[in-house]
Amino acid sequence: MDNGKVWGFKPNANISLDSSSTIRGILGMLMDSRDHKEERPVIPLGHGDPSSFPIFRTSQVAEDAVAEALRSANFNSYSPSIGILPARRAVADYLSRDLPYKLSPDDVFLTIGCIQAIETTLAVLARPGANILLPRPGFPLYESRAAFSNLEIRHFDLLPENNWEVDLDAVEALADENTTAIVIINPGNPCGNVFKYEHLKKIAETAKKLGILIISDEVYGHLTFGSNPFVPMGVFGSIVPVITVGSISKRWIVPGWRIGWIVITDPKGVLKETKIVDCIKGCLNISTDPATFIQAAIPKILEKTKKDFFSNILAIVEESAEICYNEIKEIDCISCPHKPEGSMFLMAKINESLLEDIIDDMDFCFKLAKEESVIILPGTLVGLKNWLRITFALDQSSAREGMGRVKAFCKRHAKQLQ
Amino acid sequence: MDNGKVWGFKPNANISLDSSSTIRGILGMLMDSRDHKEERPVIPLGHGDPSSFPIFRTSQVAEDAVAEALRSANFNSYSPSIGILPARRAVADYLSRDLPYKLSPDDVFLTIGCIQAIETTLAVLARPGANILLPRPGFPLYESRAAFSNLEIRHFDLLPENNWEVDLDAVEALADENTTAIVIINPGNPCGNVFKYEHLKKIAETAKKLGILIISDEVYGHLTFGSNPFVPMGVFGSIVPVITVGSISKRWIVPGWRIGWIVITDPKGVLKETKIVDCIKGCLNISTDPATFIQAAIPKILEKTKKDFFSNILAIVEESAEICYNEIKEIDCISCPHKPEGSMFLMAKINESLLEDIIDDMDFCFKLAKEESVIILPGTLVGLKNWLRITFALDQSSAREGMGRVKAFCKRHAKQLQ
Repeated sequence: MDNGKVWGFKPNANISLDSSSTIRGILGMLMDSRDHKEERPVIPLGHGDPSSFPIFRTSQVAEDAVAEALRSANFNSYSPSIGILPARRAVADYLSRDLPYKLSPDDVFLTIGCIQAIETTLAVLARPGANILLPRPGFPLYESRAAFSNLEIRHFDLLPENNWEVDLDAVEALADENTTAIVIINPGNPCGNVFKYEHLKKIAETAKKLGILIISDEVYGHLTFGSNPFVPMGVFGSIVPVITVGSISKRWIVPGWRIGWIVITDPKGVLKETKIVDCIKGCLNISTDPATFIQAAIPKILEKTKKDFFSNILAIVEESAEICYNEIKEIDCISCPHKPEGSMFLMAKINESLLEDIIDDMDFCFKLAKEESVIILPGTLVGLKNWLRITFALDQSSAREGMGRVKAFCKRHAKQLQ
Repeated sequence: MDNGKVWGFKPNANISLDSSSTIRGILGMLMDSRDHKEERPVIPLGHGDPSSFPIFRTSQVAEDAVAEALRSANFNSYSPSIGILPARRAVADYLSRDLPYKLSPDDVFLTIGCIQAIETTLAVLARPGANILLPRPGFPLYESRAAFSNLEIRHFDLLPENNWEVDLDAVEALADENTTAIVIINPGNPCGNVFKYEHLKKIAETAKKLGILIISDEVYGHLTFGSNPFVPMGVFGSIVPVITVGSISKRWIVPGWRIGWIVITDPKGVLKETKIVDCIKGCLNISTDPATFIQAAIPKILEKTKKDFFSNILAIVEESAEICYNEIKEIDCISCPHKPEGSMFLMAKINESLLEDIIDDMDFCFKLAKEESVIILPGTLVGLKNWLRITFALDQSSAREGMGRVKAFCKRHAKQLQ
């Protein structure tokens, strides 16, 4: 530096400088901590993005739609801040299929993946003193963006013994007059559960009683393979206003395309009346937009993708979920309380008392990466210490190989019985 | 609403609900206020995006590069939060051509156009109590994002009588111990000026004296056609740390592709030492990224675009700038103090005393849209009341037609001489 010159700029303390506090950050650190002499390929059981596996290639329809929009040269210009009308109409129609009322394009705001949808929604609700109820375990971007926006965080538990349902008594106890919203993620990241219709209705009634809105993160919408069908929270939009966030990232396996949405599923118009909708528009007005030509591909992507594409993807995910779940049953020191039925993840609990030299989930995951070249996300990152978030969005042989290595690792680190 | 039920959510007051406060908002309102019986085509002299004109079609090289990356299916996955390495390296090499030192890929952070670059930079600097120096006239997104981040705004003037140079005395008078940065936009939006080497050096020395960093907005970099060549502020990075923001949006006429950058032009490493760089990474870590396959096209776009493409674009822009400037000289009630030599805009002053029934720039622009189907941005939006921001990034015949209609409009509204 310049002989100790004093500069007038300092970083914003609401932004964490610690990259190990984010999923991407910790997954990168785990990758770096592998043994570089290891000859076996790395098995990624930590990610939420299977697009690098050839069997998860997106549909030809989707790729062609984007290429066509690009080649037309009609979509090189800026987009309106809320997204282009044909894309908003297509999203409204797509989501209306599962709702008891019809969405209008005016209910839809296109965003740069679900991340910008979350970012925008939390920024809009962050008036001074406000708090928000977040699930534990959950998706840590909510915590990071709430902290960024000075929105106080209060956690309620998802109950493993209850198929990871929301602890509604805790929700009632946590809320006060400054509570603005409750976040649910369904199908569940990180738990792989799918909420039943009746439970969703109870959440809606609780939110109504508390006078708060629901942010329903449905980025894994329709990625379900168990007995509970996917029910969008918007079904209960006439009980309580719902902001639904979602994207094409997961169902079409194109997270790198960065197209998502904020959708107002609120047939009574509460969010219009309370100016929340205007504030979403205002926030998007000073924000950047998804690439225009990718927006232009949305109608074809949503309307023309063949059912086969989805059923193939689901069949792969279901089979790999089965493999992971069954393999965990064979491993003494970890257990999965609930068979996954959706999304791309399950949560497995570490029984530390059975392990010799593993102090916690971080230690487990770093040693596993180093010794076995298997990447698993420590539960701490999603709010549950001494749990593991395991991805099953990968091909069967990788799932089998990965879980085999976890089993070998656990055996090696097991306490010797007396 | 639900029989007067009281809900606990209110919109964030730092986000303006008034869409007429943004350029996009007001341009949309002007478009809506046209006379719908008007048969002549609308002439858009308000935008910063000429990509809808066929003569401004982007280079084939750029389009092919994006199509190829898409078709490879190798870039459907999430990107690292700072952008993919080959793209960051290509940006470092591209910008290093004009600098006395070599940038590394680690100095480059890819963003979703220049908008996210601005958004991120201001968020990073927004510690409580901090203020930032912004040019008047300027680009109102800086004001909006500073307000969003609770960063106090202080304006310094650009001096029309001095080729729109920075009023450096005013800068010194405005700054205090809470000032973090000064923003300059070069080539100038909205003034169409290009700062001389010597003036840039003086800005750098002033910033150093004040202990503040420079944010240099070079989104119009290389779009110059006058006697002053484009000099990046980073040339003076060893005097004072510079954060350069830019994108491919303007030079390649693809604002809808949403690729830009934050670049640390700071060979002494001040921004690393003061943790500003870590904070930029932290902010991007909790933000969304440009589409991965478009990032993957960046090396080809930056390295393989033919010189012909740039010189053709510049020739069109220069000729239209000339037309607009000369036509304004023929119109009594508006004047342009400085012949444009870069970017896509000029500023023209309204002489209200010569107009009969026009009260200000807003009134001028709304009446012009209604009567002549010509869209011009009121100067109020960029900080100068009773000025006009006129775009010359359009084909010559549209420029001529548009200015002809402005002339007819002014004649019709001129005060009758006694």
